[in-house]
Amino acid sequence: MNSATTNTAKDKLLFTPGPLTTSLTVKQAMLNDYGSRDIKFINIVKEIREQLLELAGLKQQEGYEAVLMQGSGTFGVESVISCAIPKDGRLLLLINGAYGERIARMVWIHSIGTSSLIFDEDQWPDEESVEEELKKGGFTHIAMIHGETTSGIINSLEPFGKLAKKYSCVFIVDAMSTFGAVPVDFKKCNIDFLVSSSNKCIEGVPGFSFILAKKDSLKKCENQSRTLSLDLFAQWQGLENGGQFRFTPPTHVLAAFHQALAELKQEGGVNARATRYRKNFEALRTGMRNLGFKEYLPSDKQGYIISTYYYPENPAFDFKVFYEKLNNRDFIIYPGKLTKASCFRIGNIGHLFPEDIDALLTAIAEVKQEMGF
Amino acid sequence: MNSATTNTAKDKLLFTPGPLTTSLTVKQAMLNDYGSRDIKFINIVKEIREQLLELAGLKQQEGYEAVLMQGSGTFGVESVISCAIPKDGRLLLLINGAYGERIARMVWIHSIGTSSLIFDEDQWPDEESVEEELKKGGFTHIAMIHGETTSGIINSLEPFGKLAKKYSCVFIVDAMSTFGAVPVDFKKCNIDFLVSSSNKCIEGVPGFSFILAKKDSLKKCENQSRTLSLDLFAQWQGLENGGQFRFTPPTHVLAAFHQALAELKQEGGVNARATRYRKNFEALRTGMRNLGFKEYLPSDKQGYIISTYYYPENPAFDFKVFYEKLNNRDFIIYPGKLTKASCFRIGNIGHLFPEDIDALLTAIAEVKQEMGF
Repeated sequence: MNSATTNTAKDKLLFTPGPLTTSLTVKQAMLNDYGSRDIKFINIVKEIREQLLELAGLKQQEGYEAVLMQGSGTFGVESVISCAIPKDGRLLLLINGAYGERIARMVWIHSIGTSSLIFDEDQWPDEESVEEELKKGGFTHIAMIHGETTSGIINSLEPFGKLAKKYSCVFIVDAMSTFGAVPVDFKKCNIDFLVSSSNKCIEGVPGFSFILAKKDSLKKCENQSRTLSLDLFAQWQGLENGGQFRFTPPTHVLAAFHQALAELKQEGGVNARATRYRKNFEALRTGMRNLGFKEYLPSDKQGYIISTYYYPENPAFDFKVFYEKLNNRDFIIYPGKLTKASCFRIGNIGHLFPEDIDALLTAIAEVKQEMGF
Repeated sequence: MNSATTNTAKDKLLFTPGPLTTSLTVKQAMLNDYGSRDIKFINIVKEIREQLLELAGLKQQEGYEAVLMQGSGTFGVESVISCAIPKDGRLLLLINGAYGERIARMVWIHSIGTSSLIFDEDQWPDEESVEEELKKGGFTHIAMIHGETTSGIINSLEPFGKLAKKYSCVFIVDAMSTFGAVPVDFKKCNIDFLVSSSNKCIEGVPGFSFILAKKDSLKKCENQSRTLSLDLFAQWQGLENGGQFRFTPPTHVLAAFHQALAELKQEGGVNARATRYRKNFEALRTGMRNLGFKEYLPSDKQGYIISTYYYPENPAFDFKVFYEKLNNRDFIIYPGKLTKASCFRIGNIGHLFPEDIDALLTAIAEVKQEMGF
């Protein structure tokens, strides 16, 4: 199986962190118009919320909730950051890439008291330094990124969740690029809020984000929102009372996501998806190594979501030309985002299969030869 | 022609203020996956921005800009309100319905100095009271709604735009439900910011809003944003420099909107669309009058976008039952939102034609007989 069998033939394959290549059936779910108050649509929203909890191994009866928020993933993260942390709260923010930095911009804009611990982009946040900082006292919240798409590193959540518990902090996790394909033990990690979006590992199309939250932590967001649109508590209340969004929902995108969740289940759930992405990742790594490309991250830190490669040390290599030549062959890769190294990225996620990776590798080999690096 | 010929047969017809019934070809434009940095997609965004200005009779060279913002229409309105009005600014807000009230909630949350003038829901904002308020001095911005979907009233913009100019105020217009089908003379009305969304009269699907703005007024938004996600200036800069959204765009929804703009052009532009909607409106009014329903608004105030009808004064009428019986016949109407009158609403917009209105009227006649009111 490869994506060509289930995709529209004319589409380029997206080896990016999203928007991703999605199945044709996911896109076909957008061929219907639903009224936002129609019972059919309200049921779609209800089922999405239930299934998101299920994916995380959680249940509403056990005190967990799923809230959907219009906009991109960043809107979802800002929704949590701008609602969960009260005026007199203090955030400890762990940063090892651009998405941690993005949260730093949010807290700055919202004048939220914050200490940021900045780690190298190829390093995990360091438990000891985090505890040292927490010991100073006064922290109410900890926020971090699960899979930093900047490098492709996967940060362990459990040690920091344990520290959050020890120091009575609310634990906020941006799991944008991992949720649905990297298993997370919500309870063991003491997660209060986890954010992801429609167009990542669940393989829907972009248009909304979602927040999984402990009900008790969500309740504390009441009257704390710093915006109208991103009011997480009010959004939750709207979805609970009548099943409706407060403001017009992206009906078609939600229908696509509903289908994407069904296809994830059909594939075998989070573990099966993890297996496929890992296969993609391994096929890519083997192939890229054979072609002489070097990985930015050491193997133990490299996740299977997105891979970062150094530019070849050869004057014949020019990323723009490399990108364009692959693009002309209908393969889209992604530029780098690191502060200290010249790299490019290749995503392993979306409706892509090892055969698609093989096709990409063949194209990269051709381009390498053409460019002479 | 009716919507059944160009829509998927199984869809209910949406006589609502949106999400609306859209053409099948608009929805089919969502059957492709685009990379957000792909030149194809960047061109879609570029053309959308150009064509939105064109629709308003504006040009970039003349100092006007179009900015797209993820989320629903409310996100777009909040983007303007939370970026255009500086800390020491003062807003005069004209309210004659729920969407004006929604802006009042925004300014309250953002602690923006505001005087609200509240008019009855069946009355236009009164020029004299507005000028009286402005004379008190200190106002920097005026905001109002063009078509108040609460009642269906269309507010004149020109007198208030003239007052904005006279009192050196920035003029902000929420034209959510009118843009693309109710002609507006941007320059004559001295509009600085106009907000609408993808799923209204342009007949796209929901997922983003757009802001048309005077470039000079937009420039003043720099560093004034009260959020990261809704930063209007930064969003504009992102779209100008490289043609990209700052954060993941709803690629499929944008592709649908691009197609919707082409179909609007093909139909004959804003005036042709106005003509069709007016025909829908008139067919509905005639039919509803024949069935004994009474309009909430006097004829001179009633726009052709959405119509509000009083509940029949008959104990046999129950809106929930009425709605359900129409829903079972695949027609979706809309509940009322007025503070002082029991009404329901019927939208005249979307990919609907007078023949669809006739079909709805036949269904209403049947339901009326069944319910015995």
